[in-house]
Amino acid sequence: MPTQEEMKAVLRAYVDGFANDDAESVIALFAEDAVVEDPVGTPEKRGLEEIGKFYRDAVASGAKLTLDGPPRGSQGNGAAMAFTIDLPALNLSIKAVDVFTFDDAGKIAVMRAYWGPDDMKST
Amino acid sequence: MPTQEEMKAVLRAYVDGFANDDAESVIALFAEDAVVEDPVGTPEKRGLEEIGKFYRDAVASGAKLTLDGPPRGSQGNGAAMAFTIDLPALNLSIKAVDVFTFDDAGKIAVMRAYWGPDDMKST
Repeated sequence: MPTQEEMKAVLRAYVDGFANDDAESVIALFAEDAVVEDPVGTPEKRGLEEIGKFYRDAVASGAKLTLDGPPRGSQGNGAAMAFTIDLPALNLSIKAVDVFTFDDAGKIAVMRAYWGPDDMKST
Repeated sequence: MPTQEEMKAVLRAYVDGFANDDAESVIALFAEDAVVEDPVGTPEKRGLEEIGKFYRDAVASGAKLTLDGPPRGSQGNGAAMAFTIDLPALNLSIKAVDVFTFDDAGKIAVMRAYWGPDDMKST
Protein backbone atom coordinates (compact mmCIF):
# COMPACT_ATOMS: atom_id res chain seq x y z
CA MET A 1 0.00 0.00 0.00
CA PRO A 2 1.40 3.46 -0.83
CA THR A 3 2.14 5.82 2.06
CA GLN A 4 0.03 8.90 2.69
CA GLU A 5 2.86 11.02 1.31
CA GLU A 6 3.10 8.94 -1.85
CA MET A 7 -0.64 9.24 -2.53
CA LYS A 8 -0.60 12.99 -1.99
CA ALA A 9 2.40 13.32 -4.32
CA VAL A 10 0.32 11.56 -7.01
CA LEU A 11 -2.55 14.00 -6.47
CA ARG A 12 -0.17 16.94 -6.80
CA ALA A 13 1.38 15.39 -9.93
CA TYR A 14 -2.14 15.11 -11.36
CA VAL A 15 -2.67 18.86 -10.84
CA ASP A 16 0.82 19.61 -12.20
CA GLY A 17 0.20 17.55 -15.34
CA PHE A 18 -2.61 19.92 -16.31
CA ALA A 19 -0.49 22.95 -15.41
CA ASN A 20 2.28 21.67 -17.70
CA ASP A 21 -0.03 20.63 -20.57
CA ASP A 22 1.42 17.15 -20.08
CA ALA A 23 -1.39 14.63 -20.47
CA GLU A 24 1.04 11.69 -20.60
CA SER A 25 2.32 12.47 -17.10
CA VAL A 26 -1.27 12.35 -15.81
CA ILE A 27 -2.08 9.10 -17.62
CA ALA A 28 1.11 7.50 -16.23
CA LEU A 29 -0.35 7.86 -12.72
CA PHE A 30 -3.08 5.30 -13.50
CA ALA A 31 -3.01 1.51 -13.31
CA GLU A 32 -3.47 -0.48 -16.54
CA ASP A 33 -7.02 -1.54 -15.52
CA ALA A 34 -8.00 1.69 -13.76
CA VAL A 35 -11.57 2.99 -13.63
CA VAL A 36 -12.51 6.68 -13.95
CA GLU A 37 -16.02 8.00 -13.25
CA ASP A 38 -15.95 11.73 -14.06
CA PRO A 39 -18.36 12.99 -12.98
CA VAL A 40 -20.13 10.47 -10.72
CA GLY A 41 -23.34 9.38 -12.43
CA THR A 42 -21.83 9.13 -15.94
CA PRO A 43 -20.47 5.97 -17.63
CA GLU A 44 -17.13 4.74 -16.29
CA LYS A 45 -14.03 4.87 -18.44
CA ARG A 46 -12.13 1.61 -18.07
CA GLY A 47 -8.50 0.87 -18.88
CA LEU A 48 -5.67 3.06 -20.12
CA GLU A 49 -6.99 3.42 -23.67
CA GLU A 50 -10.28 5.04 -22.61
CA ILE A 51 -8.64 6.91 -19.74
CA GLY A 52 -5.81 8.11 -21.98
CA LYS A 53 -8.24 9.58 -24.50
CA PHE A 54 -10.17 11.28 -21.69
CA TYR A 55 -7.08 12.99 -20.24
CA ARG A 56 -5.58 13.88 -23.60
CA ASP A 57 -8.84 15.67 -24.45
CA ALA A 58 -9.06 17.29 -21.00
CA VAL A 59 -5.49 18.62 -21.08
CA ALA A 60 -5.91 19.77 -24.70
CA SER A 61 -8.98 21.77 -23.61
CA GLY A 62 -6.63 24.01 -21.62
CA ALA A 63 -8.13 23.04 -18.26
CA LYS A 64 -6.08 24.18 -15.25
CA LEU A 65 -6.60 22.93 -11.69
CA THR A 66 -6.19 24.97 -8.51
CA LEU A 67 -6.38 23.12 -5.19
CA ASP A 68 -8.95 24.36 -2.65
CA GLY A 69 -6.80 23.42 0.35
CA PRO A 70 -4.38 20.52 0.71
CA PRO A 71 -5.06 16.97 -0.54
CA ARG A 72 -6.45 14.64 2.12
CA GLY A 73 -5.33 11.09 2.88
CA SER A 74 -7.00 8.35 4.93
CA GLN A 75 -6.14 5.39 7.14
CA GLY A 76 -6.01 3.23 4.00
CA ASN A 77 -5.41 3.42 0.27
CA GLY A 78 -7.75 6.36 -0.40
CA ALA A 79 -7.11 10.07 -0.88
CA ALA A 80 -9.17 13.05 -2.02
CA MET A 81 -8.80 16.65 -3.09
CA ALA A 82 -11.09 19.63 -3.67
CA PHE A 83 -10.16 21.98 -6.47
CA THR A 84 -11.35 24.48 -9.03
CA ILE A 85 -11.04 23.74 -12.76
CA ASP A 86 -10.61 26.78 -14.96
CA LEU A 87 -11.49 26.41 -18.63
CA PRO A 88 -10.59 29.80 -20.12
CA ALA A 89 -11.49 28.75 -23.68
CA LEU A 90 -15.07 28.07 -22.52
CA ASN A 91 -15.20 30.91 -19.97
CA LEU A 92 -16.08 28.25 -17.43
CA SER A 93 -15.01 27.43 -13.91
CA ILE A 94 -15.97 24.14 -12.19
CA LYS A 95 -15.75 23.27 -8.48
CA ALA A 96 -14.90 19.57 -8.06
CA VAL A 97 -13.85 16.97 -5.50
CA ASP A 98 -11.86 14.01 -6.87
CA VAL A 99 -11.59 10.81 -4.83
CA PHE A 100 -8.83 8.29 -5.51
CA THR A 101 -8.23 4.65 -4.59
CA PHE A 102 -4.69 3.32 -5.05
CA ASP A 103 -3.34 -0.13 -5.81
CA ASP A 104 -0.39 -1.68 -4.01
CA ALA A 105 2.03 -0.32 -6.62
CA GLY A 106 0.93 3.25 -5.84
CA LYS A 107 -0.97 3.65 -9.11
CA ILE A 108 -4.49 5.11 -9.23
CA ALA A 109 -6.95 2.19 -9.45
CA VAL A 110 -10.18 4.21 -9.23
CA MET A 111 -10.92 7.92 -9.57
CA ARG A 112 -14.41 9.32 -9.03
CA ALA A 113 -15.09 13.02 -9.58
CA TYR A 114 -17.87 14.91 -7.81
CA TRP A 115 -19.18 17.88 -9.76
CA GLY A 116 -22.50 18.59 -11.39
CA PRO A 117 -24.24 21.20 -13.52
CA ASP A 118 -24.69 23.46 -10.48
CA ASP A 119 -20.95 23.43 -9.80
CA MET A 120 -20.13 25.17 -13.10
CA LYS A 121 -19.96 28.94 -13.37
CA SER A 122 -19.41 31.30 -16.29
CA THR A 123 -16.28 33.38 -15.80
CA MET B 1 -33.23 10.45 -6.55
CA PRO B 2 -32.70 13.70 -4.61
CA THR B 3 -31.88 16.84 -6.59
CA GLN B 4 -28.44 18.45 -6.45
CA GLU B 5 -29.92 21.19 -4.26
CA GLU B 6 -31.45 18.68 -1.86
CA MET B 7 -28.14 16.82 -1.46
CA LYS B 8 -26.22 20.03 -0.85
CA ALA B 9 -28.82 21.13 1.73
CA VAL B 10 -28.17 17.86 3.58
CA LEU B 11 -24.40 18.53 3.56
CA ARG B 12 -24.98 22.02 4.95
CA ALA B 13 -27.36 20.63 7.60
CA TYR B 14 -24.61 18.18 8.57
CA VAL B 15 -22.20 21.09 9.14
CA ASP B 16 -24.92 23.08 10.97
CA GLY B 17 -25.70 20.16 13.28
CA PHE B 18 -22.16 20.35 14.67
CA ALA B 19 -22.36 24.16 14.90
CA ASN B 20 -25.57 23.86 16.92
CA ASP B 21 -24.37 20.97 19.15
CA ASP B 22 -27.35 19.05 17.77
CA ALA B 23 -26.25 15.46 17.15
CA GLU B 24 -29.85 14.29 16.61
CA SER B 25 -30.27 16.62 13.61
CA VAL B 26 -27.13 15.08 12.06
CA ILE B 27 -28.25 11.50 12.76
CA ALA B 28 -31.66 12.24 11.22
CA LEU B 29 -29.95 12.84 7.85
CA PHE B 30 -28.98 9.14 7.61
CA ALA B 31 -30.96 6.17 6.31
CA GLU B 32 -31.85 3.38 8.76
CA ASP B 33 -29.28 1.02 7.18
CA ALA B 34 -26.63 3.63 6.38
CA VAL B 35 -22.91 2.91 6.34
CA VAL B 36 -20.26 5.31 7.66
CA GLU B 37 -16.52 4.80 7.09
CA ASP B 38 -14.74 7.61 8.99
CA PRO B 39 -11.94 7.72 8.13
CA VAL B 40 -11.53 5.45 5.08
CA GLY B 41 -9.48 2.43 6.12
CA THR B 42 -11.18 1.96 9.51
CA PRO B 43 -14.10 -0.40 10.28
CA GLU B 44 -17.48 0.71 8.93
CA LYS B 45 -20.25 1.75 11.28
CA ARG B 46 -23.52 0.21 10.09
CA GLY B 47 -27.05 1.21 10.98
CA LEU B 48 -28.47 4.05 13.04
CA GLU B 49 -27.46 2.61 16.40
CA GLU B 50 -23.73 2.56 15.61
CA ILE B 51 -23.93 5.75 13.56
CA GLY B 52 -25.94 7.50 16.29
CA LYS B 53 -23.32 6.70 18.92
CA PHE B 54 -20.56 7.92 16.60
CA TYR B 55 -22.19 11.31 15.97
CA ARG B 56 -23.31 11.81 19.58
CA ASP B 57 -19.68 11.33 20.64
CA ALA B 58 -18.38 13.54 17.80
CA VAL B 59 -20.76 16.42 18.57
CA ALA B 60 -20.12 16.06 22.33
CA SER B 61 -16.38 16.42 21.63
CA GLY B 62 -17.08 20.04 20.60
CA ALA B 63 -16.02 19.46 16.98
CA LYS B 64 -16.94 22.33 14.63
CA LEU B 65 -16.83 22.11 10.84
CA THR B 66 -15.87 24.91 8.44
CA LEU B 67 -16.38 24.32 4.73
CA ASP B 68 -13.33 24.76 2.45
CA GLY B 69 -15.40 25.98 -0.50
CA PRO B 70 -18.92 24.98 -1.50
CA PRO B 71 -20.26 21.39 -1.40
CA ARG B 72 -20.03 19.59 -4.74
CA GLY B 73 -22.74 17.52 -6.44
CA SER B 74 -22.53 15.08 -9.34
CA GLN B 75 -24.59 13.76 -12.24
CA GLY B 76 -26.08 11.18 -9.89
CA ASN B 77 -26.81 10.50 -6.23
CA GLY B 78 -23.36 11.52 -4.91
CA ALA B 79 -22.06 14.68 -3.30
CA ALA B 80 -18.87 15.70 -1.50
CA MET B 81 -17.42 18.48 0.59
CA ALA B 82 -14.00 19.54 1.85
CA PHE B 83 -13.83 21.09 5.28
CA THR B 84 -11.74 21.73 8.37
CA ILE B 85 -12.70 20.18 11.72
CA ASP B 86 -11.70 22.20 14.75
CA LEU B 87 -11.45 20.36 18.06
CA PRO B 88 -10.62 23.12 20.56
CA ALA B 89 -10.68 20.76 23.57
CA LEU B 90 -7.88 18.74 21.97
CA ASN B 91 -6.09 21.72 20.36
CA LEU B 92 -6.49 19.87 17.08
CA SER B 93 -7.54 20.80 13.57
CA ILE B 94 -8.24 18.17 10.89
CA LYS B 95 -8.56 18.67 7.11
CA ALA B 96 -11.14 16.25 5.68
CA VAL B 97 -13.15 15.45 2.57
CA ASP B 98 -16.46 13.66 3.16
CA VAL B 99 -18.16 11.82 0.30
CA PHE B 100 -21.88 10.99 0.42
CA THR B 101 -24.16 8.63 -1.48
CA PHE B 102 -27.89 9.23 -1.14
CA ASP B 103 -30.90 6.90 -1.33
CA ASP B 104 -34.06 7.70 -3.25
CA ALA B 105 -35.66 9.26 -0.17
CA GLY B 106 -32.85 11.80 0.06
CA LYS B 107 -31.26 10.20 3.12
CA ILE B 108 -27.52 9.52 3.38
CA ALA B 109 -26.92 5.86 2.51
CA VAL B 110 -23.10 5.92 2.64
CA MET B 111 -20.61 8.43 3.99
CA ARG B 112 -16.86 7.94 3.60
CA ALA B 113 -14.43 10.41 5.18
CA TYR B 114 -10.95 11.07 3.81
CA TRP B 115 -8.47 12.20 6.45
CA GLY B 116 -5.42 10.61 7.93
CA PRO B 117 -2.78 11.19 10.59
CA ASP B 118 -0.97 13.68 8.35
CA ASP B 119 -4.14 15.76 7.98
CA MET B 120 -4.24 16.61 11.71
CA LYS B 121 -2.47 19.65 13.11
CA SER B 122 -1.99 20.98 16.63
CA THR B 123 -3.55 24.40 17.05
